[in-house]
Amino acid sequence: MYPTARRFPSRAEIAARAPSMWRYREWLPFEGTPTLSQDTGFTPLVDAPRLADKLGVAKLWIKNDAVSHPSLSFKDRVVASAINAAVALGLDTVGCASTGNLANAVAAQAARAGLPAWIFIPDNLEQAKVLGTAVYGPNLVRVRGHYDDVNRLCVQLADRFGWGIVNVNLRGYYGEGSKTMGFEIAEQLGWRLPTAVVVPMAGGSLLTKLHKAFGELRDAGLVSDEAPRLYGAQASGCSPITRLVESGGETIVPQVPNTIAKSIAIGNPADGVFAARAMRGTGGWSAAVSDESIIAAIRLLAETTGIFTETAGGATLAGALALAGQGRFGKDDD
Amino acid sequence: MYPTARRFPSRAEIAARAPSMWRYREWLPFEGTPTLSQDTGFTPLVDAPRLADKLGVAKLWIKNDAVSHPSLSFKDRVVASAINAAVALGLDTVGCASTGNLANAVAAQAARAGLPAWIFIPDNLEQAKVLGTAVYGPNLVRVRGHYDDVNRLCVQLADRFGWGIVNVNLRGYYGEGSKTMGFEIAEQLGWRLPTAVVVPMAGGSLLTKLHKAFGELRDAGLVSDEAPRLYGAQASGCSPITRLVESGGETIVPQVPNTIAKSIAIGNPADGVFAARAMRGTGGWSAAVSDESIIAAIRLLAETTGIFTETAGGATLAGALALAGQGRFGKDDD
Repeated sequence: MYPTARRFPSRAEIAARAPSMWRYREWLPFEGTPTLSQDTGFTPLVDAPRLADKLGVAKLWIKNDAVSHPSLSFKDRVVASAINAAVALGLDTVGCASTGNLANAVAAQAARAGLPAWIFIPDNLEQAKVLGTAVYGPNLVRVRGHYDDVNRLCVQLADRFGWGIVNVNLRGYYGEGSKTMGFEIAEQLGWRLPTAVVVPMAGGSLLTKLHKAFGELRDAGLVSDEAPRLYGAQASGCSPITRLVESGGETIVPQVPNTIAKSIAIGNPADGVFAARAMRGTGGWSAAVSDESIIAAIRLLAETTGIFTETAGGATLAGALALAGQGRFGKDDD
Repeated sequence: MYPTARRFPSRAEIAARAPSMWRYREWLPFEGTPTLSQDTGFTPLVDAPRLADKLGVAKLWIKNDAVSHPSLSFKDRVVASAINAAVALGLDTVGCASTGNLANAVAAQAARAGLPAWIFIPDNLEQAKVLGTAVYGPNLVRVRGHYDDVNRLCVQLADRFGWGIVNVNLRGYYGEGSKTMGFEIAEQLGWRLPTAVVVPMAGGSLLTKLHKAFGELRDAGLVSDEAPRLYGAQASGCSPITRLVESGGETIVPQVPNTIAKSIAIGNPADGVFAARAMRGTGGWSAAVSDESIIAAIRLLAETTGIFTETAGGATLAGALALAGQGRFGKDDD
């Protein structure tokens, strides 16, 4: 997807650009400058000393994509990437299969672009999330079943109607958008890489793309640190990737989700095998946490850092606490 | 509050700073660099061509403080300003009287700073907003009555306990934080001022501080445009400032609020007289809009720009539509 002989920008060139995910556009699959959703990304990286104490690590930061523009989750990044690809490819309708957050991001960005959107969601989603999609006026279809059923339906629809389903036939473009979170973390740390990153996992794509982003920054000479150890977090009620890491196997065993963390409840994760490999390959590990510990972690994050996260964020912090309790971070980490 | 002979930064100096409200710190009432909430501000300014068409103006932008860090409203700015002042003044407890959004911002930023917080709210607030405060673990007190009753109580408490109530005894610092929205608008327009700005009004402070900010940028030689005409928007169920503008009087007639736009429902606005003067003085005007038109505007904003606003944002767009319908923006405006 890259043009040949792409020149990557220097730290100073990047610093002079507007604070959005597009300041790293040379690493995204576009020629020239994207025309849509140009103000997405560059969310705060929040120093969290009291949480660091709780985890027994020297330093800890929270990447707060809950204040992402426009729809308050990291899915804004991947949709900004995919919707520009859709327009460049001449597609006139976009859509997605979603556990909630992606639905919000697609509906919001399609509305702004003036594109019709078809959004497919499981019928058990939280009402507040459904409202947060419906308000933008997309074609919204609730499918009886879990995310994996919704996703299968979208594969068939993308073929039949020639729609740009962002996480199906535009998945190559979509996934690359996730890398910008990694680029931002590095820049916000003063062009350093963290030694360990704990990542919420649904389909497993974000973790693999962070891994890729850190590698690309090293390849471009923008950072010189070792690749971070990558750790995953899932809810126990939907933890096929964690089970794969623990078992040491090479094949995902699908699971029927049963957790309050609906936005990460994907029972048959498309990138699960690759995420597990990235965790093992970097010396990381993966945790599965109870719904009770997710709720406790939401409260802990709010009380110690002033960030009110959704269940996926609660699972991430609960996972970090569980991994710390297992001694997985070692002694001198940050 | 300013030190003597303060030197203001150039456009280039500002551009080189981190994207937060503190890139304009020389215009805020602090010596040196604030230590708390350093990553608040610099929210997107969104070009909204389809809304511009609806209003019959050449250009229209939406300043989206609904993605403000950490608590999703512009109140993060004023609290970031006030909490740094509280610490500089040696106060060890912060608090506020709030219609909801300020409560969230104080609770979130106090939690992050490790300061105890006392938050006072009317007892009829939306449950979702109350949860969004309570999660941070403040001392949360629901007061039977409207905001104006809550505010009177806080004046007495600030005196008795020596607490830093951000919108009472820290109001001088608090209000200045609002100016950063004006600075951002100017910088994001390439150091131009808009010709007209429509502002939601509760206590009336934001409108007067935007006016001040635009004037300070002109004084500093950073912009050379005329002062923007300032327009206000309120819900009809709580519109004492609009009534003052319409009547041409000089005294607020308090009103008992009755509107779904609770976050701007202040019946006896502290800065109402000054806001009315700023609107009249710049050639602007003020609108009061029905709850029905607020709901319609929330939907219109979502469908045309991909931004899901709360009722206060709906009132702002509904007000802009009403003012456009009255021909208040003239012919050649943007």
